[in-house]
Amino acid sequence: SCSPVVLLFSNCGKMVKRVALILAGCGVYDGTEIHEASAILVHLSRAGAKVQMFAPNVEMMHVVNHCEGKPSNEKRNVMHESARIARGDVSDLAKLNVADFDVLIIPGGFGAAKNLSDWATKGKEYSVKPQVEKIIKSFHQAGKPIAMCCIAPVLAAKAIPGCEITVGHDCECEKWPNAGVAKSMEELGCKHVNKNVEEVHVDKKNKLVTTSAFMCNAQLHEIHDGLGVMVTEVLKLA
Amino acid sequence: SCSPVVLLFSNCGKMVKRVALILAGCGVYDGTEIHEASAILVHLSRAGAKVQMFAPNVEMMHVVNHCEGKPSNEKRNVMHESARIARGDVSDLAKLNVADFDVLIIPGGFGAAKNLSDWATKGKEYSVKPQVEKIIKSFHQAGKPIAMCCIAPVLAAKAIPGCEITVGHDCECEKWPNAGVAKSMEELGCKHVNKNVEEVHVDKKNKLVTTSAFMCNAQLHEIHDGLGVMVTEVLKLA
Repeated sequence: SCSPVVLLFSNCGKMVKRVALILAGCGVYDGTEIHEASAILVHLSRAGAKVQMFAPNVEMMHVVNHCEGKPSNEKRNVMHESARIARGDVSDLAKLNVADFDVLIIPGGFGAAKNLSDWATKGKEYSVKPQVEKIIKSFHQAGKPIAMCCIAPVLAAKAIPGCEITVGHDCECEKWPNAGVAKSMEELGCKHVNKNVEEVHVDKKNKLVTTSAFMCNAQLHEIHDGLGVMVTEVLKLA
Repeated sequence: SCSPVVLLFSNCGKMVKRVALILAGCGVYDGTEIHEASAILVHLSRAGAKVQMFAPNVEMMHVVNHCEGKPSNEKRNVMHESARIARGDVSDLAKLNVADFDVLIIPGGFGAAKNLSDWATKGKEYSVKPQVEKIIKSFHQAGKPIAMCCIAPVLAAKAIPGCEITVGHDCECEKWPNAGVAKSMEELGCKHVNKNVEEVHVDKKNKLVTTSAFMCNAQLHEIHDGLGVMVTEVLKLA
């Protein structure tokens, strides 16, 4: 048996790009950064892309009370919380079939470091969750472009050894409070490229587009615009 | 004793508009609609406004599992969940001092109908939570402009009797699945004005700006742009 080949065209006759977006909860301190996800979805909508959202159907590493910035003793499911961003329309990450998509995008927020990897607790000794690593490697091996922002590029640093990324600037200051991440990425064998919040770095060989987003202490509209550049660049590569 | 008068100026010498944003949780089915709040914050950021976010420090009416669309038996606090949108920077609504602000904005999502009023359960027999009603009336009586989107204009319909609003179109179809709300608003003595998703209605007498947002079955970037018009128009009135 063979499955039908479905080709999608937009109004103007161009092939519609099919984008898989991986979420990791809902909220900067324990999930996906809400404004990064929303900005990416706005830019994808404007570009006429077809988006499907996915999240791991597992318990969150922990739940953070976002008023206090401290973990509570609640338990929540990553996919159920991601559904708040997706307005209900999110699928179990286990069902993501790489063949069905042209592009992979992973927003930031601590969820990428807590629920998609253990960067938040292990630092440089971290590993990417096997389910997530396998998907990133599959997109990469298929020559399909990938975009990541904020802290999410740490996932690429493990899954695509030697890749080029930006997480903003590598010199700590008020504007770049987490510049140490850039140094760690270099130590892992990646090439880190300093970029401002409205810029992206495109690793052409690996078809990997990264941008700093909330790694930069910037105004929200600057972050929104930087993510617009990220979406434009990753769709160009597809 | 008297408090110091603080005047804020932007780079270009214009007075900075001080905006109070009332949140009602985090997620379309039981809280503030995430993408509406995010779009409003992006547009306010671009306009150089100074924003402070508030939410009632009370238990949510209920928690909805956004994958299943059904209530769970969890209990969550409206302010704590709103802090996910506010990246921690949200204040107890009880502390909102109307004198400190030029503009009030309330996004939609079922939180407006569940945590700021009981519209979701009572329909036309609803009332606005006294804390919220008092704040809306205070802004209105002080001649300060107010903007609301999606289902939030039902709050204005009670707090500002006879006001003019839009919640989109008053004739139900695939694009306007909740058009019945417009009819209910008319029955309450409001004037409902049909507007498309990229448009707003400005009630000049009451300085009230409303737009349909997710009341319309539209693309996300259209909703984003409609909220941009709402922000522009409400700041003009301040």
